[in-house]
Amino acid sequence: MLVYGGGSIKKTGLYEEVAAAMQAGNISFTELAGVQPNPRIDSVREGVRRCREEDIGLILAVGGGSVIDCAKAIAAGFFYEGDPWDFFTYSARVTKALPVGAVLTLAATGSEMNVNTVISNDQTQEKIGIGSKHLIPRFAILDPVYTFSVPAEQTAAGAADIMSHVFEQYFSANDGAYLLDRLGEAVLKTCIHFAPIAIKEPENYEARANLMWAGTIALNGLLSTGKETDWATHGIEHELSARYDMTHGLGLAILTPRWMEYVLSDKTAGKMAEYAHNVWLVHDSDNFEAARRGIQLTREFFHQIGLKGSLKELGVTVESLPVMAEKAAAYPIGRFKQLNADDVLKILQSAY
Amino acid sequence: MLVYGGGSIKKTGLYEEVAAAMQAGNISFTELAGVQPNPRIDSVREGVRRCREEDIGLILAVGGGSVIDCAKAIAAGFFYEGDPWDFFTYSARVTKALPVGAVLTLAATGSEMNVNTVISNDQTQEKIGIGSKHLIPRFAILDPVYTFSVPAEQTAAGAADIMSHVFEQYFSANDGAYLLDRLGEAVLKTCIHFAPIAIKEPENYEARANLMWAGTIALNGLLSTGKETDWATHGIEHELSARYDMTHGLGLAILTPRWMEYVLSDKTAGKMAEYAHNVWLVHDSDNFEAARRGIQLTREFFHQIGLKGSLKELGVTVESLPVMAEKAAAYPIGRFKQLNADDVLKILQSAY
Repeated sequence: MLVYGGGSIKKTGLYEEVAAAMQAGNISFTELAGVQPNPRIDSVREGVRRCREEDIGLILAVGGGSVIDCAKAIAAGFFYEGDPWDFFTYSARVTKALPVGAVLTLAATGSEMNVNTVISNDQTQEKIGIGSKHLIPRFAILDPVYTFSVPAEQTAAGAADIMSHVFEQYFSANDGAYLLDRLGEAVLKTCIHFAPIAIKEPENYEARANLMWAGTIALNGLLSTGKETDWATHGIEHELSARYDMTHGLGLAILTPRWMEYVLSDKTAGKMAEYAHNVWLVHDSDNFEAARRGIQLTREFFHQIGLKGSLKELGVTVESLPVMAEKAAAYPIGRFKQLNADDVLKILQSAY
Repeated sequence: MLVYGGGSIKKTGLYEEVAAAMQAGNISFTELAGVQPNPRIDSVREGVRRCREEDIGLILAVGGGSVIDCAKAIAAGFFYEGDPWDFFTYSARVTKALPVGAVLTLAATGSEMNVNTVISNDQTQEKIGIGSKHLIPRFAILDPVYTFSVPAEQTAAGAADIMSHVFEQYFSANDGAYLLDRLGEAVLKTCIHFAPIAIKEPENYEARANLMWAGTIALNGLLSTGKETDWATHGIEHELSARYDMTHGLGLAILTPRWMEYVLSDKTAGKMAEYAHNVWLVHDSDNFEAARRGIQLTREFFHQIGLKGSLKELGVTVESLPVMAEKAAAYPIGRFKQLNADDVLKILQSAY
């Protein structure tokens, strides 16, 4: 089953390329089109039903993280008798899945080489991620040329997503993961260097290739080996996406500098100064000053690549903030600094 | 079959730990002990014979790169009717191998997570490496505690080996591998930061853990994706090891700064200045000056961690230099700068 999104792969010619390769290999296939950004559980349910009816042996996701995540959830649902949403409410576990392959068209989520799938439910207004080793794609084709047609805003949002993945793992209460943190800084520097280039010159192969590889390395498990990771910002952003169908990377770009400001403390200043020093070459011997400068540069960078605006400008209602805060922190989130619903509300308010 | 080296694992208690785990799992095993540094084809031949006689199903290498490399060659030889040295003369190809597992006791070669095996032949005075996907260990256990007992000189030589693996991939004629080069710099910084600590405090977990992980990342395929790589220094060093049974990392530490000096040119100065700038924080706007400073700091670092001496002091005869140069460059080696036998001789002479 060939799974794809809104049809951009038909415009770019990738659809025909994939179809021709399948025909050349004598592989018969069916299609599930129209998978949305923030992929919905309804698409998953439809995919599972169709896979069963049509006796599917492999799911080939051609698209970005949303398409791959949808394919993964279908692959897991195929072997589960109940409703696939059960996986996302943690009332069922993935124990088996159809093989999934991926042809990537957007540098962002890292789904092409990891265990994760994140699915949204319009009925419950939830966006929830799960992970299972059964969901790692068996293969992924990363050709930077397939990302040449990604528009500027999506390119920027993808870069912000990649950077956020690093932040969630880099800002950790663990000391001692020196190598991993230097590797994470390598990914951050790559995004900072190449996102503006890819936006200005969409067909710059070098920029697209580096961003594509950065997206994979950022969340394929390498950067978190042996670390406590944070993931509070992603948790908060999922509430925005679930309720307002916001572009994930844009939500992250708005929230991240606010999260950084909020969690800056005596305890965290050293690590945040390390980030400012190593990634932004900030030379300030005072940790607080260096950290503040790093946060400011992070915010300016997101603005520079076009990711701006407040939650208010993006249509978020002020009434929804406490509701989202309560849902995001139904139990405390974040390890770098643990946040409760009141903390999350303050972060959302600062981003309003 | 449990394969190990000179018995240090008996002193440290690791042997008993492994044996107890096997017994607890009801796994019967036999042993091949005494694998030497620069493992010999004779050990491989013996291992193959014994594996066949004793109907072995898995080879567990407990040791450093030499032990793992020997286990890999045995695993390949098991399914090959001819002499396993045929693999290393490229007159036979590995098409199948017994599964290999590894318990690593030395941070250096990266053999625990890669396709490579390097074997020496005393009769022909050769040391040759091959690679096959069939030789990637099925699992590897990396517990930094198992490296606490590594002596200072082996720790230093291991760090030099890791750094050399990065250099061989970093110094490349390819432009555009920005992310990979930043990742390589992360590994280099890790070695530079932690090797002196591990030498001074052998039981420093953080130092041992970072060095161990660095060794794996340096040569598991990640840093060379899509790059032309050099490998001239390794080629030259293999001649020294084959003829003089030199510690691989020590040979590399002596040769590397000389190789760097020799290949410094208008064409390479920019890349070498990039290394000096990013790894050693050299701030010199002239590429040649920056490169020279980076080379000097590299040499001083190897001296600082105890890797010093000239080829002469290490017992190399001046008569053997042209012979080794001819063998190392029987065909031109190196991609960053291509070297012929005359070039190699000059590098060897500068290290004499």
